[in-house]
Amino acid sequence: MKIDLNSDMGEGFGPYRVGDDEALIDVVSSANIACGFHAGDSVIMGRTVKMAKERNVSIGAHPGLPDLMGFGRRVIQMDSAELEKHLIYQIGALQGIAAAAGHRVTHVSYHAELGNMAVANRDIADLLARAIARIDRELIVYSMPDTEVERASERAGLRTLLVHSDTPGAVELARTVRCVVESGGGVVTPASEFLA
Amino acid sequence: MKIDLNSDMGEGFGPYRVGDDEALIDVVSSANIACGFHAGDSVIMGRTVKMAKERNVSIGAHPGLPDLMGFGRRVIQMDSAELEKHLIYQIGALQGIAAAAGHRVTHVSYHAELGNMAVANRDIADLLARAIARIDRELIVYSMPDTEVERASERAGLRTLLVHSDTPGAVELARTVRCVVESGGGVVTPASEFLA
Amino acid sequence: MKIDLNSDMGEGFGPYRVGDDEALIDVVSSANIACGFHAGDSVIMGRTVKMAKERNVSIGAHPGLPDLMGFGRRVIQMDSAELEKHLIYQIGALQGIAAAAGHRVTHVSYHAELGNMAVANRDIADLLARAIARIDRELIVYSMPDTEVERASERAGLRTLLVHSDTPGAVELARTVRCVVESGGGVVTPASEFLA
Amino acid sequence: MKIDLNSDMGEGFGPYRVGDDEALIDVVSSANIACGFHAGDSVIMGRTVKMAKERNVSIGAHPGLPDLMGFGRRVIQMDSAELEKHLIYQIGALQGIAAAAGHRVTHVSYHAELGNMAVANRDIADLLARAIARIDRELIVYSMPDTEVERASERAGLRTLLVHSDTPGAVELARTVRCVVESGGGVVTPASEFLA
Repeated sequence: MKIDLNSDMGEGFGPYRVGDDEALIDVVSSANIACGFHAGDSVIMGRTVKMAKERNVSIGAHPGLPDLMGFGRRVIQMDSAELEKHLIYQIGALQGIAAAAGHRVTHVSYHAELGNMAVANRDIADLLARAIARIDRELIVYSMPDTEVERASERAGLRTLLVHSDTPGAVELARTVRCVVESGGGVVTPASEFLA
Repeated sequence: MKIDLNSDMGEGFGPYRVGDDEALIDVVSSANIACGFHAGDSVIMGRTVKMAKERNVSIGAHPGLPDLMGFGRRVIQMDSAELEKHLIYQIGALQGIAAAAGHRVTHVSYHAELGNMAVANRDIADLLARAIARIDRELIVYSMPDTEVERASERAGLRTLLVHSDTPGAVELARTVRCVVESGGGVVTPASEFLA
Repeated sequence: MKIDLNSDMGEGFGPYRVGDDEALIDVVSSANIACGFHAGDSVIMGRTVKMAKERNVSIGAHPGLPDLMGFGRRVIQMDSAELEKHLIYQIGALQGIAAAAGHRVTHVSYHAELGNMAVANRDIADLLARAIARIDRELIVYSMPDTEVERASERAGLRTLLVHSDTPGAVELARTVRCVVESGGGVVTPASEFLA
Repeated sequence: MKIDLNSDMGEGFGPYRVGDDEALIDVVSSANIACGFHAGDSVIMGRTVKMAKERNVSIGAHPGLPDLMGFGRRVIQMDSAELEKHLIYQIGALQGIAAAAGHRVTHVSYHAELGNMAVANRDIADLLARAIARIDRELIVYSMPDTEVERASERAGLRTLLVHSDTPGAVELARTVRCVVESGGGVVTPASEFLA
C-alpha cells in the first residue's frame, strides 16, 4: 500500500504564522503551498519549498482567491476569465520559487472558495483544468472524488489524486496516520512518485 | 542594423490604467510587463501577454518592490534574501501567464527602486542575477551600461541587452524611432531574436 | 430653487488617477470622497478635502467594500457585522482627515456594491444607518428615492438627500447643469447647508 | 501611586492573531490599538474596542506605516506630508470605531518605524504632533522620555505620558506588575483618567 500524506502549508503572511509547518513537514509526503493570494508570500513560499526539498516532500500550488483578509474563504464574484488568470499567476509564481530552489511543482490543490467555485460549475472547472494543462501537462490535480474538478481534470488530460478531508490537529493526526501506515507495511510516498 | 524598441507595459491595476498599451504594442519589439507588485495584476498581465504574442513582441518580466501605493519607487528596507524571493516570485508568475498563453518570457528588466538597489550594491546584483540564472539560463537581463547589474549578469552567465533611458511621450517617440530605423534600412527586432 | 451638484471624487490610488477632480471641484457643491477601501488613500483624501474646503464644497464619505482590485463593484460575501465595521472605519478615517484640515464630513454616500447590499436588504440597511447615527446624528445619507437605504436612514433618525443617477462626461454635465440652474435664478448649494 | 499598565493590542489581520488580547485586556489599564496599516482591520478594531469599553480600559491609536507584510517595522521612504496623512487617517478610523461603540480614543502611541521616524527627526515629530492636536487637543501622546516625540508633543500643546519599554511575555509580566502595584497600595489607572 502506498499513501500520500498531504497538508496545506505556508499559510502565514509577513509576520503572521498559521500551523506548525516545521513539525508537519517531517510527517507529510506532499505539501500544498499557499501562493500569496489568500495567504503566503514570497519569503514564506521560499522557506516552505526549501524545507520540502530537503525532506523529499512533493510540493503543489495551493491557489486561492485574491483575498488575504478573508483567507480565500469568502465568495467574491468575478468572471471566470479573471479567475483563470489568478490561478495561472499563482501556479507560475510557485513554479518560479521552486525552480530557483531546485525543486519542482508536481500538483495543484484548489483552496477553499476557489475550489468551491470549480466544484459547483462545470465550465469553470474546465476552464481552470485546461489552464493547468497548458502550463504543465504533468501537473496532478488533487480533487475530492466524484466532483466537477475530477471530471474536468480528466477531460483536460490531467491526472488526479483523490483526497480525503482534513481536520484540526493536523500534526498529530498526520503522525498517527503515518505510524499506522508504516506499522502495517505501507509506505508514505510523495505525490510526485505516486503516479509516475 | 538591428534595434530593439522596448517599453514598460501593463502598469495599471484593477480598473486603473497607465499609458496607452494598445498603441505602444504596435510599435515596440519588446515589452517589460509589470508583475503585480508595484503595478499590474493577473488580468492585465494576461491581456498584455496576449497582445504581445499576437504581434510577435518579445516579453520580459518587469519586477518591482511590493509597493502598489508607491509604484515601486520608494525605498523599502528589506534584507536581500527577501528581495531575491520577490524577484523570483514575479518572474515565475509572468512565466505562468506566458506559458498558458503560448508565449515565453525572454528577458528581465528591473523596475525603479528594485533596479536602484541592484545598481547600488554588488552583492544584491549578484544575488538577483544568480536567481534569474537558476530560473532560466536563457533569460536576457536588460541593463544600463557599465553598472553592477550588467557585471553581475555576466558573472552569472546571463546575457545582457544594454538599454537607453525612456522619456515621456513614449508612443510618439517609439513611432518616430521605428520610422527612422526602418527608413535607414534597419530592422526593429524582438529582443528574443536579438541575441539568439 | 436650490440644487446640490454632487460627484464622486478622490477615486485614484497611489499614482493612479480617475476623473478630473481639479475641474469637477470648481463646479460641484458636494463631493463624495473615496475612503481607501475601493479607491482613495490618505494622501488623495487629504488633497481632495483641502480642495473642497478652499471652494466651500461639502464633503461626504464614500465608503466601499475592501476591494481595490475590483473597485468595490464586486459582490464579496461577508456577514453584516463585518460590513458595518468597514463602513464605520472609513467614515472615521475621512472625519480624521477632515478634522485635521479644518473641514467637516456632512454626508455619507454608499459606493457601488456596498450600496447594493444595503438597498437589497432591510436588515443591512438598518445596521448601517444606525452605525452612522451613532458616529454623528447630523450626517446626511445620500440615497436613491424609495429604497431601503432611504427608509433605514429615516428609521435611524438621519436626514436623507435624494440623488439622481450619474453618467459619463461628469465635468461637462455638471457645468451645464450649473449654468442652467443659475441662469434660471437657482443656487447651487452645498449639501451641508441644504438641510440646515 | 498611580500606574498605567499599557499594551499593544489588536495586531492580527483577517484570520491571523498575534498575542492573547483576551487575557491582556483583563490586566492592562490602556490599550494601543493597531489601525489597519501595519496590522489590525475594521473587525479586529471593533472587537478590541468593545472589550476595552466593557472593562473600562482606555484606548489609544497605534498607527504604523502602510506595510502589512513588514508589520510596520521596515523603513519606507516617504515624504513627511504623506506620513502625516497616514497618521491622521488611522487615528480617525479608530475614532470612528470608538464612537460607534460608545468609547473614546484618548491617546496615540506611534508604532515601530513610524515612531522611529518621529524620534529621529524634529520636523517630522512636530508635523505629526501638530496634526494630532488639530484632530483632538485632548489626545495624550505616549512617548519614551527625552525624545523628539516628547518635545514635539509639548510644543504642540499636547500632554504626554512617558512609557517604559515592552518585552515578550506580556500577559504574565502585566499580571505581575499589576499584582505588585496593588499589593503596595497602588492603583492601576486608565490613561484617560491619569492626566485628567
